[in-house]
Amino acid sequence: MRRVADDIPAYTYGGAETARSAVTLEELEDLKVTVGFTSDDRGFLHMAGEVLADQTEQIVAHWRSGIIASIPNLARHSRSLDGNPIPQYVARSNLRFEQWILDTCFRSYDQDWLNYQQEIALRHTGFKKNKVDGVHSTPYVPLRDIVAFVAVINDTIKPYLAAKENTVDEVEAMHRAWCKSLQLQIALWARHYTDVTKSNSEW
Amino acid sequence: MRRVADDIPAYTYGGAETARSAVTLEELEDLKVTVGFTSDDRGFLHMAGEVLADQTEQIVAHWRSGIIASIPNLARHSRSLDGNPIPQYVARSNLRFEQWILDTCFRSYDQDWLNYQQEIALRHTGFKKNKVDGVHSTPYVPLRDIVAFVAVINDTIKPYLAAKENTVDEVEAMHRAWCKSLQLQIALWARHYTDVTKSNSEW
Repeated sequence: MRRVADDIPAYTYGGAETARSAVTLEELEDLKVTVGFTSDDRGFLHMAGEVLADQTEQIVAHWRSGIIASIPNLARHSRSLDGNPIPQYVARSNLRFEQWILDTCFRSYDQDWLNYQQEIALRHTGFKKNKVDGVHSTPYVPLRDIVAFVAVINDTIKPYLAAKENTVDEVEAMHRAWCKSLQLQIALWARHYTDVTKSNSEW
Repeated sequence: MRRVADDIPAYTYGGAETARSAVTLEELEDLKVTVGFTSDDRGFLHMAGEVLADQTEQIVAHWRSGIIASIPNLARHSRSLDGNPIPQYVARSNLRFEQWILDTCFRSYDQDWLNYQQEIALRHTGFKKNKVDGVHSTPYVPLRDIVAFVAVINDTIKPYLAAKENTVDEVEAMHRAWCKSLQLQIALWARHYTDVTKSNSEW
């Protein structure tokens, strides 16, 4: 599997320390039908992965330094509680953010992928945020900010998809497949946020 | 304000029977910043409204009869519990679905809009689904299906945006503004689903 680096801190994809997802493969299949995810989309995501593979560092820098850093409401989630930068936290999570781009494009959406989707979600909630990196930052990232920021991710990824030799139609098809995958992923991530046994809303 | 019909059943936008949103205007402003919603987007949504206004019936028929009806997992939400069609329910909610297209494009995203976003969300949850139409159908629409189906809505709206005399750049800009608005709306709708005082998850 394609990796952005040999050592990606706390990247536990496929590992035994990643718990089994509470979402079933059947529920995942239903969600694929709902977003209209086809084998063509699978192919275009793979094409997107080839296009994006050598641009992941630039893309994540664009999102993190170019956009998130200037929105205080979002930037705080990678800072200390008194607002100071935590460079190591950003470096570690940026590398996982880069790898997430490749995983979105290249991974089969199977049990391991489902498990890691849950892991990603939990690491944004009070259940696990900060823990794998041993930092003191905000206790969780509100679901609404994740949902909303996906609009920016979808919008800003397009020029990177168009940066190589692909036709306009290929770029459109890659982008469509990307957007379907992202919507599928938000749907999965939302699960833990809707858990009524939580002690407080992380909306 | 533009309406798809003089009489839209149970369309209570701006009315006293629509409760005040639990989301504040400040939270809404923060969300607009997060999705990157600008005054340009506001203008392009208005342009989109002009383009879509005489196509809303066709668009909603496309979504409802052309797509949802053939996905059992989604179609059940507008049927009786034993799976029979409820034509009046579909007719009433289709008209509101059409009006929602216009409201997305033409309304100011202010307190009334925020209140009606909450009303829309509640009518998809166990709190209010079926009630305004006096029908017996599924108790709620799972959040994950709403999030996932937005990918289809965003994808299928594009040819309708391109159906008039607009330039390719205008169509792109209208579509970008539409997608931002939809992501903003999902973020708002998610609030009630993350309420930890609910008796069961409606993920």
